[in-house]
This record gives sequence, C-alpha cells and structure tokens, in this order.
Amino acid sequence: MRVGYVQTSPIFGDKETNFKNVKQLIGVQTADLIVLPELFATGYTFTTKEEAINLSEGNNDETSKFLHDLSKKTGAVIVGGFIEKEGNQIFNSAMVVSPDGFQGTYRKLHLYYKEKLWFSSGSRQLKIFEINDMNIGVMICFDWLFPEVARSLALKGADIIAHPANLVMPYCQDAMITRCLENRVYTVTANRIGEEKRGIDHFKFTGKSQITSFNGIVLSSAPADEIFIEFIDIDISQARNKNLNELNNLFEDRRPHFYIK
Amino acid sequence: MRVGYVQTSPIFGDKETNFKNVKQLIGVQTADLIVLPELFATGYTFTTKEEAINLSEGNNDETSKFLHDLSKKTGAVIVGGFIEKEGNQIFNSAMVVSPDGFQGTYRKLHLYYKEKLWFSSGSRQLKIFEINDMNIGVMICFDWLFPEVARSLALKGADIIAHPANLVMPYCQDAMITRCLENRVYTVTANRIGEEKRGIDHFKFTGKSQITSFNGIVLSSAPADEIFIEFIDIDISQARNKNLNELNNLFEDRRPHFYIK
Repeated sequence: MRVGYVQTSPIFGDKETNFKNVKQLIGVQTADLIVLPELFATGYTFTTKEEAINLSEGNNDETSKFLHDLSKKTGAVIVGGFIEKEGNQIFNSAMVVSPDGFQGTYRKLHLYYKEKLWFSSGSRQLKIFEINDMNIGVMICFDWLFPEVARSLALKGADIIAHPANLVMPYCQDAMITRCLENRVYTVTANRIGEEKRGIDHFKFTGKSQITSFNGIVLSSAPADEIFIEFIDIDISQARNKNLNELNNLFEDRRPHFYIK
Repeated sequence: MRVGYVQTSPIFGDKETNFKNVKQLIGVQTADLIVLPELFATGYTFTTKEEAINLSEGNNDETSKFLHDLSKKTGAVIVGGFIEKEGNQIFNSAMVVSPDGFQGTYRKLHLYYKEKLWFSSGSRQLKIFEINDMNIGVMICFDWLFPEVARSLALKGADIIAHPANLVMPYCQDAMITRCLENRVYTVTANRIGEEKRGIDHFKFTGKSQITSFNGIVLSSAPADEIFIEFIDIDISQARNKNLNELNNLFEDRRPHFYIK
C-alpha cells in the first residue's frame, strides 16, 4: 500500500492557486492514500468569523470537486482540510474523498486557540472510513495532544490515521511516535509551511510532515521549511496485529475498568 | 520542591546488598520525593513463581522498614518497587512511604511478558497519595505504554507521577515527554541498569532515568549504563494550571462523550 502527504504553503484565501499547487506537486503520482494539510485551500489565520464563513463550503462544492478529480487521477483516497458549512455553523473539517466520490467528513473535536472564535467544535462520534481494504481514521492537528482521539480511532479499527495539520509548535512529531506505539497504527501527518501575519496574529507553521509506522519508526520526515511531497510503501496488515510478544497483546492487555474517561 | 531518582544495578535476590547500595548512593541528600526502580531490592528475572514468592513481602517487612528509615533520614516520600504478598497472590507493586511510615502501594495494572506468569495484575483503582502538599500518582514501567494510566492519574489530581521502571526497550523516555505534555504533570522515571541472565531469559536494562517537566522539558536524564542519582528543584504548582493559553485548558477542552474507554 502506498501512502503519502503533500506539504504545501497555502496562500490565504486563494483556493484556485492552492488547488493548482497541490495538483502540480502530485503530478503523475498514484497512491492508495494521500493526506493534505488542515485548511489546505483557504489558509488558517482568520481575523473575523465572516472571513471564515466566506471561505466555507458544503460537501459538493469546489473543494469536494477538486479532491474528487485528484482522487480519480491518482487512484487514491484523499483526506484534506476545509471549512465545512452546515446551516449556521462552520467546522474545521477534513473531507475524505475516494475515486467513487465524497465519503464523509471529520469535524475537529479539539479546537486550538482562536479557532474557537470561528468554528463550532465537532459533535459527531469518531468514525472509521473503510475504503479499499483500508480502515482510515481521521484527526486534525491539535487533536494529537489528546491521547483519546488516536486511541478511540484505533479501538474502532483504524489501521492508519490521516492527520491534516497546521502545526505551530514543535512537539507533535515526536508525540506521533508515541501515538503509533501505543496503538500500533500507522499515522500520516500532513503539515504546512510558511507564515501568516493577519490582524494581530502571526503564525509560523513548522512543516516536518511525517509518516510514522505502527512500531514507532519514522518512515518519512519532511523539511521544516520547504514545500515537499513523499510517498511510502507500507504493509497495513501489520497494524491489525496487536501482539507485542507471545504474552502481551496491546488491546487485550488494557484494563478499562481502571481508566477514567 | 526537590525530587530525585536513584538508578541502580540490583543484584538478583540480595536485598541486603541492594538496600545498602541505595542508602550509600543517597548519602546525606534530603528531598521531598525520591523514586527508586521497579523491584529495586529483589531483581527482576525470575525463573519460577516460587522464586518470586520467596522474595515477596507484606507491608511491614524488610523493604517497608528500609524505606521508612530512608524516608526519615532524607525527609522525603519514597516510592520504590517490591513484590507485594497478599494471601495467595503476589503483585508487582510500588510502595509509598513517608517519614510518618507506610502510606500504601500501587499494584501494577499492565504486566509485561513473563511477569504474567509470576504476578497477579493489580485490581484496585488508581489513587493519588496526598502527602506534604504533593499529589503523587504512581505507575510502574510498562504502564507507560497505556496512555490511560497517566491520564487517569492526572484527572484524579496528580501533580507528579512516580514511575519506578525496569525498562528493556528504548521507547519510554521519549514517550514520557508526551505523557507530560498531554497531562501537564511532572514525571520521575527511575530505571535500573545492568543485565540479568537467568534461565532462558537475558535482559539488559536501559537506564536513562528521567525527570520530565509539565511542559515536556527533560530536566534530568541519567546515563544508559551507569549507577546514577540526581535531584532537581521543581515548582509543583505549575502542574496544577492546565491552561495552555487564554482560550485552551487541557482538561476543560477534553470531549469525553466522544472517547472510547
């Protein structure tokens, strides 16, 4: 199975250019799963809620169409961030699209900082996207800090976690090693690079997108400040075997009766 | 507040020598909390259950007496591993002793490999030892791999997690950075060094005991293969503030309704 990420430097508010750049970077690559950054087509640093609303979309609008075209061209399931609109609410979401079309969205459960001013936080249960014999879980950026997200996805059967991100701190990449070890799943963190200085906010995004193996090995690590794309072959069946040795099984050894939720 | 660990190389089955070595290493140090390795007085690599039973103790036997003397001498709460006997069962436990005497034990919830052949796994709820204005949680070695342990201790109010260990793999130390960041607690991992070749088993213990700050900074890291002791001053009140910024609070931001236990 071939999985990859695209590490881009989105231009705020310019969806067309951001689409074009992703398409050009991927070129003629084919894959089974491709992960794009959080909010890859809109940029991140909103100054008002209206700005975010104006860049929001339904599930059959331009981002959905772009991702469906990309999915058909590459043969891959694509997971990429966008602003999802439903009624009066907007969400920091990731869309999952296969060559067959739109498969669903994940709405970020843990909003970081001023995201709370623009977005509603997700209010749907975590789900696994079962497509082409992959069990794909999705989490977004800051969700990494809450071990329950990757854990819940793994317990629901995820083999691989697609993790679109706009990281501004340096801790996540090492933590993803722990997330993989503690759950024996693969993870693909697609981060962005570049800076956004808008209003009083100034974010520098930290790159270093990363593919991490079920056994904690970092299979791919992007530079901190370059646009970058990488694809890796993985054996997803490894993530379905939770045995650590002949006496320990990572999930059977859990003691939920003693855990606090 | 002054916290420390003792990284030793226990001699299998020789409690008296192991006690003497710990005492000598600590010398005239005083502290608020001192953590000793898992099974620091007995060694680890049993070949039969009888061997482990023969080295097991109640809560008022030689290990308890040694730790109480050490606690009075140093002024510190001491957390150290021992084989706890109760009725027909033995447990891989850590004892908590203050200058006032025996405070309680933690019985390891997640047993590693052949520990399952010798020990019963813990069947008591996780608890916090509130002593001298410290809220101390205890976990043992392999418990690190299960994020629910540190999480549950933190949710129950732990400021600092005492973590006696006999680690044989290289992953825990980095993972403890994640455990601290995701819970904003301090951790003290007291590991051992040396080798034990007994029966068909041959373990090399990996040292690198570590004190990690609530913000993920490694405050102390011991060598991989030397007997070592270190004490560090920490501000435990930092672990009681779960705010990440003016909009994010690590615990208030949790979404338990969406987590699987």
